Amino acid sequence: MVTRMSSLFLRTLREDPADAELPGHKLLVRAGYVRRAAPGIYTWLPLGLRVLRKVETIVREEMEAIGGQELAFPALLPKEPYEATNRWTDYGDNLFRIVDRKDAQMLLGPTHEEMFCLAVKDMYTSYKDLPLTIFQMQNKYRDEARPRAGVLRGREFIMKDSYSFDIDQAGLQKAYDAHRDAYIKIFDRFGFEYVIVQADSGAMGGSASEEFLAVSPNGEDTFVRDESGYAANIEAVEIPVAAPVEAGVGPAHVEDTPDTPTIETLVAQLNANHPRADGRGWTAADTLKNVLVMLVHPADEEHPQGWREPLAIGVPGDREVDAKRLEAQVAPAEVEAFEEKDFASHPELAKGYIGPGVLGRGSDLIQNLEERDEDGAPEGEKYPEDQIRFLLDPSIPEGSAWVTGADEPGKHVIDLVHGRDFTADGRIQAAEIREGDPSPSGTGTLTLARGVEMGHIFQLGTKYAEALGLKVLDENGKLVTVTMGSYGVGVTRAVGVIAEDNHDEVGLVWPRQVAPFDVHVVVAGKGEELFVAADDLAAQLEAKGVEVILDDRAGKVSPGVKFKDAELIGVPTILVVGKGLADGVVEIKDRRTGERREVPVGDAVAAVRAEIGATA
Amino acid sequence: MVTRMSSLFLRTLREDPADAELPGHKLLVRAGYVRRAAPGIYTWLPLGLRVLRKVETIVREEMEAIGGQELAFPALLPKEPYEATNRWTDYGDNLFRIVDRKDAQMLLGPTHEEMFCLAVKDMYTSYKDLPLTIFQMQNKYRDEARPRAGVLRGREFIMKDSYSFDIDQAGLQKAYDAHRDAYIKIFDRFGFEYVIVQADSGAMGGSASEEFLAVSPNGEDTFVRDESGYAANIEAVEIPVAAPVEAGVGPAHVEDTPDTPTIETLVAQLNANHPRADGRGWTAADTLKNVLVMLVHPADEEHPQGWREPLAIGVPGDREVDAKRLEAQVAPAEVEAFEEKDFASHPELAKGYIGPGVLGRGSDLIQNLEERDEDGAPEGEKYPEDQIRFLLDPSIPEGSAWVTGADEPGKHVIDLVHGRDFTADGRIQAAEIREGDPSPSGTGTLTLARGVEMGHIFQLGTKYAEALGLKVLDENGKLVTVTMGSYGVGVTRAVGVIAEDNHDEVGLVWPRQVAPFDVHVVVAGKGEELFVAADDLAAQLEAKGVEVILDDRAGKVSPGVKFKDAELIGVPTILVVGKGLADGVVEIKDRRTGERREVPVGDAVAAVRAEIGATA
Repeated sequence: MVTRMSSLFLRTLREDPADAELPGHKLLVRAGYVRRAAPGIYTWLPLGLRVLRKVETIVREEMEAIGGQELAFPALLPKEPYEATNRWTDYGDNLFRIVDRKDAQMLLGPTHEEMFCLAVKDMYTSYKDLPLTIFQMQNKYRDEARPRAGVLRGREFIMKDSYSFDIDQAGLQKAYDAHRDAYIKIFDRFGFEYVIVQADSGAMGGSASEEFLAVSPNGEDTFVRDESGYAANIEAVEIPVAAPVEAGVGPAHVEDTPDTPTIETLVAQLNANHPRADGRGWTAADTLKNVLVMLVHPADEEHPQGWREPLAIGVPGDREVDAKRLEAQVAPAEVEAFEEKDFASHPELAKGYIGPGVLGRGSDLIQNLEERDEDGAPEGEKYPEDQIRFLLDPSIPEGSAWVTGADEPGKHVIDLVHGRDFTADGRIQAAEIREGDPSPSGTGTLTLARGVEMGHIFQLGTKYAEALGLKVLDENGKLVTVTMGSYGVGVTRAVGVIAEDNHDEVGLVWPRQVAPFDVHVVVAGKGEELFVAADDLAAQLEAKGVEVILDDRAGKVSPGVKFKDAELIGVPTILVVGKGLADGVVEIKDRRTGERREVPVGDAVAAVRAEIGATA
Repeated sequence: MVTRMSSLFLRTLREDPADAELPGHKLLVRAGYVRRAAPGIYTWLPLGLRVLRKVETIVREEMEAIGGQELAFPALLPKEPYEATNRWTDYGDNLFRIVDRKDAQMLLGPTHEEMFCLAVKDMYTSYKDLPLTIFQMQNKYRDEARPRAGVLRGREFIMKDSYSFDIDQAGLQKAYDAHRDAYIKIFDRFGFEYVIVQADSGAMGGSASEEFLAVSPNGEDTFVRDESGYAANIEAVEIPVAAPVEAGVGPAHVEDTPDTPTIETLVAQLNANHPRADGRGWTAADTLKNVLVMLVHPADEEHPQGWREPLAIGVPGDREVDAKRLEAQVAPAEVEAFEEKDFASHPELAKGYIGPGVLGRGSDLIQNLEERDEDGAPEGEKYPEDQIRFLLDPSIPEGSAWVTGADEPGKHVIDLVHGRDFTADGRIQAAEIREGDPSPSGTGTLTLARGVEMGHIFQLGTKYAEALGLKVLDENGKLVTVTMGSYGVGVTRAVGVIAEDNHDEVGLVWPRQVAPFDVHVVVAGKGEELFVAADDLAAQLEAKGVEVILDDRAGKVSPGVKFKDAELIGVPTILVVGKGLADGVVEIKDRRTGERREVPVGDAVAAVRAEIGATA
């Protein structure tokens, strides 16, 4: 059926919506594709729903091509399976929780690992039943702290989530590779630039994991890549632990460094008052900065209200701790700032002068455990059992010498050697990554860019199957735990990304494969004969399977308004029936290139079909 | 793509699920169409999803045929619009309510009148924009007190809801009629028996309203019909008020009737001790039974916690109050039993002997207001302003004489005449309706039957548009309130109803138009050549657009098991490739009739296509 602008539920807007920042988001609202219903929650208007369905169809076709079977789980789910896997608490405030009229606790599903796992457990019993890949395309819910950018990060959104079930790692690898190939096909069909990066596994558990990021300067994710093909989400970058070195310095010595609570003031004072013997100037990179944060762990059996843990992170003074990298490392715990009240309850911490000593792993020179034991711990704290966990950046080699806090206001210690004078509880991948850093791949240096996570493929392994007891009999009649993969595509988000990637200053420019229509027929003028001819062309096109939107608005709607709307809406081909009709010609315009050409009316249908690549 | 049983995510069950009562529900679970995820919440397995999509397509096609435009509102909605129309409270416990991380109150949409109304308000301004019909097909949520019968009454379910917007009643009537016609087409295509009945408008407000009920002995709704074509949901039956009569009895007189708290004991004692002068025996129909219930009204501005109101209903002693009819009349208030504690706080009520006197509207004979005022009202109650509301059944004519309670234990009053000796506050349509009752249409008598509500069409009028301020300019440039209609089809429920209506003792028997597949090809035997031939036939059929499920299970799955599964699954045509193949024949079986016939292999594709009505 030809869609007619005269009755289409659509009002284009000349002004940008107040709450939109990204150009694609603004245009999706202005052109009448989506409407905000609540923060992070959108209505899909008729035009938008058409694009969404095309995106869904592409995803469905590629999932079915790798043998995926579609089903549909509910969005409203019981709590118990999510409790069994800890996600009920691990998801924290991101989970929409509901209490029903019978006081049963329920949730709106963020993803469905648990439900798929239980369904397979219920129905399958043998290795012969596997492999299996099942998927759904359905509303997901996450109570995002910062919903943003329209449909790019919503609180209700459509996701294709699929899950693979295999008897062993080889099977899982095969399912994973099949999904990887399918995702490449899907994102190629969407027609935006993307990159496949190593991913952090986050709260999902499991091991191998890659993300498909749409490359976009407005993306929320940062990724790195080098010349060798290595690419990783910044959260997943693994900086190798630096090889040990020989510091070649004398014993550590504490020096007065008054009023040096910052790295900058410290370096200035070191160069002024404590120049190095070899004449090299001190830089921030010579200092060890010990950053304190507060982890908020989710509830567990021992801590029904959750619990808070201070954490100290040692990084070279010329680097910051990267909040997202840190969050990824400590998830499901959340990271909060270490506040004045926290310092108050840890009087051993001299703010601005914190060193490994007070963190409990220094040498006698800077820490005397006996002495501190005599002093005793602050009220209500055990000590030293409750000593603050101290993790070092991997770039700090064994044997390297540092200037760092001496745990007294106005004092630093110089030539403190890692391994000789202090140790830590381990390493943490939390320091910022910079453009030009050596690549962890060992080849060249890193470049940084931004992207939007569009897909995620994930070897979950046995985490969920173990928690929920999904086992099958193997060839020898022994029960073995099934190994799972989980794979997601952001379907509503894809519409947002395609819009961000396909527009110009006057409107959207849809790639053909997801455009709401194939051709936008514009009646440019008032003559009855124009309407008749346009109607006729639209009907002929529809009869050939071409999807047509016809701007048949009469009355006061000028050709100028119609052209503006056509450019805003962004159907790839525009067919103008205007004053040329008197000479037997109509105009075909390419929305993307702006090219126009006149064709005889009688050739218009064939010309449009050639334009859109229709065959037969 | 041919669906293969060897890899299909399906396990048929030989046993009925413990929680299923209706045969269709049992079979949908046993045949692997749906799975229960939580009470009233179902997963659609691959087979079920295929049927569901076909049902959706039928509904979508008919909605588009009447000019309906599809869009998709979110399921998770803000509270405010629902507060503006009072549905936030009127829906009571049926609404799933959520508090998000920012303490905003939200809900899962039960229907979307408010959201559609606001969208139109935002986008449209003039009568020229109307008429408009927009619809969606999407998950709805209702926290039913008694979810039942699988997908027949779920708490998460798919509904097609459409809304019409018009400038006047004539437009609304046209949209209503168009929907009525579309629904007739939809339900005809579903292929179950249904009836269109007058409906009660319930909590929705508005006026004209009809329901499409699938006729089913297991339905939750009761409806009536007569020979003239009149049909109504029992909740919507309007019994005409009986014409006044002349009782021709003397003054009312109170008599001792000890130990007669029930109608039965009363009638016995009347006949024994107080025979009528004319010799006619007393029957229950001569008595006036005054039934007390407690209404629980939802919160409003004056009563933020809601409020409770006692209500007395006077019905002839041979009828009960019908709970559903009463609930429909008093909605959004809910009905609770009048309990001992309620009697305790109303000491004026003599349980078993309650009459119109104490209800405040009797003559001096049975009630002395002055006397009661001296006694004073119970603590905390105003009196007589807080007198209990008393409503009479319409079958009780003015002028009729009754035996009823005298408001003292062991006493009744005889010859109490309605209008002469007592009055009520009004009428209520709450008495039970019985088979054989005279029809309110004036023609013949009523028959009763049961059904499942499958569709509801509703002239909402201006209720929502007024509450939310949806006005447009009319032809004269004056703002007028838009008039709305709302129209629903239970989509997931339709699958359940079709299953209830289409099965036999061994399995489901799908109507072709919603069957998950067109043909079920069964390999009945172990020979490799059977598999090759079946594969080939399946591929040929698929190439012709026929949807095929192929039972290619090898190993220990016997032909008997395969036949059982095919009958359970219920695809209308079964093609058996078995031992006849050696003689060049295969068997075509009609699932519904059980008829079988052999056809040469070479003719099988054509024969199957003829069977399923394929053309070209």
